[in-house]
Amino acid sequence: MTNLYAQAGVSIDAGQEAVNLMKEAVTSTHGAAVLAGVGAFGGLFSLKNQFSGLTEPTLVASTDGVGTKIKLAAALGRYDTIGHDIVNHCLNDISCAGEGVRPLFFLDYVASSKIDPRMVAQVVTGMAVACRHIGCALLGGETAEMPGVYQAAEFDVVGTMVGLLDATRLYPRPSLKVGDVLIGLPSSGPHTNGYSLIRTIFAQTDWNTEFAGIGRLGEALLTPHRPYQTPLMRLQKENIPIQALAHITGGGLVENVPRVLHQGLTVRIKRASWPIPPLFQLIQAQGGVSDMEMLRVFNMGVGLVIIVDSSLAQTALTTLGEGWIIGEVIAGQEMAWA
Amino acid sequence: MTNLYAQAGVSIDAGQEAVNLMKEAVTSTHGAAVLAGVGAFGGLFSLKNQFSGLTEPTLVASTDGVGTKIKLAAALGRYDTIGHDIVNHCLNDISCAGEGVRPLFFLDYVASSKIDPRMVAQVVTGMAVACRHIGCALLGGETAEMPGVYQAAEFDVVGTMVGLLDATRLYPRPSLKVGDVLIGLPSSGPHTNGYSLIRTIFAQTDWNTEFAGIGRLGEALLTPHRPYQTPLMRLQKENIPIQALAHITGGGLVENVPRVLHQGLTVRIKRASWPIPPLFQLIQAQGGVSDMEMLRVFNMGVGLVIIVDSSLAQTALTTLGEGWIIGEVIAGQEMAWA
Repeated sequence: MTNLYAQAGVSIDAGQEAVNLMKEAVTSTHGAAVLAGVGAFGGLFSLKNQFSGLTEPTLVASTDGVGTKIKLAAALGRYDTIGHDIVNHCLNDISCAGEGVRPLFFLDYVASSKIDPRMVAQVVTGMAVACRHIGCALLGGETAEMPGVYQAAEFDVVGTMVGLLDATRLYPRPSLKVGDVLIGLPSSGPHTNGYSLIRTIFAQTDWNTEFAGIGRLGEALLTPHRPYQTPLMRLQKENIPIQALAHITGGGLVENVPRVLHQGLTVRIKRASWPIPPLFQLIQAQGGVSDMEMLRVFNMGVGLVIIVDSSLAQTALTTLGEGWIIGEVIAGQEMAWA
Repeated sequence: MTNLYAQAGVSIDAGQEAVNLMKEAVTSTHGAAVLAGVGAFGGLFSLKNQFSGLTEPTLVASTDGVGTKIKLAAALGRYDTIGHDIVNHCLNDISCAGEGVRPLFFLDYVASSKIDPRMVAQVVTGMAVACRHIGCALLGGETAEMPGVYQAAEFDVVGTMVGLLDATRLYPRPSLKVGDVLIGLPSSGPHTNGYSLIRTIFAQTDWNTEFAGIGRLGEALLTPHRPYQTPLMRLQKENIPIQALAHITGGGLVENVPRVLHQGLTVRIKRASWPIPPLFQLIQAQGGVSDMEMLRVFNMGVGLVIIVDSSLAQTALTTLGEGWIIGEVIAGQEMAWA
């Protein structure tokens, strides 16, 4: 049997090797609810005993990629952090749907023109570690070899997460109103946004260059997207009700905060209320980027915005042990800066 | 405000235009269970009234891409069929999990180095039409512009489908045994497998070339992946129990049938039992591909294998109104040909 398929650029064996390498890490994320192992046509997740305390069990689902942060990972030859990025990005997205969102399972897709099994295994193992950390099953995935679609050595990583919540507790809560307070929680870096701009700005800079307060540039930029499950659970445990949540992704505070409010409400954000991390200052200085564009492209140090009643703001901050009061809900359409 | 981000290759406006174009088609797939529209951080799907008749409600999920069939779509400038491909591929995958799988929702991911809003809208509209046809909500998705990751004019399309079934009715059924019969249902073409090999074989052929019994080559090759929901429901309606199902994807009959059986069982497939469609004959002749490789890369005209008790095989065929008896379950490890 001649192997014309391999000559056309598709290696079934290389894909199989990658599957074996990551199998163990993936299996370690499987609790009792997962009914089938890797290799079936679909992953099975039992809903038995999942609905305790829920009036109207509802699924929340989100698909996302990590953007061109993967190009940086490819340039540095380090792939595990990308796995964390995509899992935590999806988690933070679905967490914004309502109170007490519980991640159930995650599925991945990794594609490249030529599959490097070790690279795929690193990515998926990173996903598995991140999934285990947040109590989410890595239920399945697909590794695709796509000759001629991706540029040499480039790849893409896509994730889908499905979580469970109660439809009677969606955000924004009906009680969200003018005067509610915005608490910003620190991001761990640019997360997964703005990397095309970052790569343009640092096109002539060695990724190993050290900068004061930042360390090696490439390493700092690869810091994985932070999951916000722990601080959110802290508030829940202390019965501090959240009015709405905004995950600060592409579009920054400008686009992501107003869209989580009721019609007719917007926010005023105080620019000087939180410290801009050195990494964003460096990006801005090196690129000559305007303040307003920085705020539309990057999270600028605020990865999640939690909106609470003003009377609870200080208690919330104390309970969280981190974060800043960065603004408030106001009436109107146009977001305002102070 | 200078728009450095646009200069770096990312156009937020182009992405927004695509979202608007496809919004209507997407919304048309939303039944009462969908609680939020496009634009939220996550799509919401209520499980209220979904569990009637299910002993142990279980989710089944699958993520997949359409492989390099997208290169052919790009070459021909026709993108809607790709949307059908990915939806139907996911549907057929999750259908293999057990009796009566009901698709709940689908999420998409479309990425390219440069977003062409009309292209994305065509792909997603195709997905929406396919979703509506099978009663599945197109719950959300992501359009990603990834400068420098994809080759010029190339793109990737990924889909994730989540369905519902009863964990007490998983395939293979405990009653699956030696002597059970394999019914093959016709595929609509190569579906989404083997396109890298196809493109290599026809590298010098104009896609508009007409072939006897096939029509225009490019158009024939773009025929969307067929969904098997209707024939499966026909059997269910007549109470003809299915023992196991195998969706014939990459790896062909050789890899996809044996993996759906109990340990210690395999199959014997009769090569002459179904007609090889002219398109596969053309691919084989033009490429000088061996019989065995054709059977490992392509579905060769059989897109789904339904396994039933031998006493029900003829009734099943009559009920289906299509298909062939292509083999039987035997004891052993190695798949056999007859």
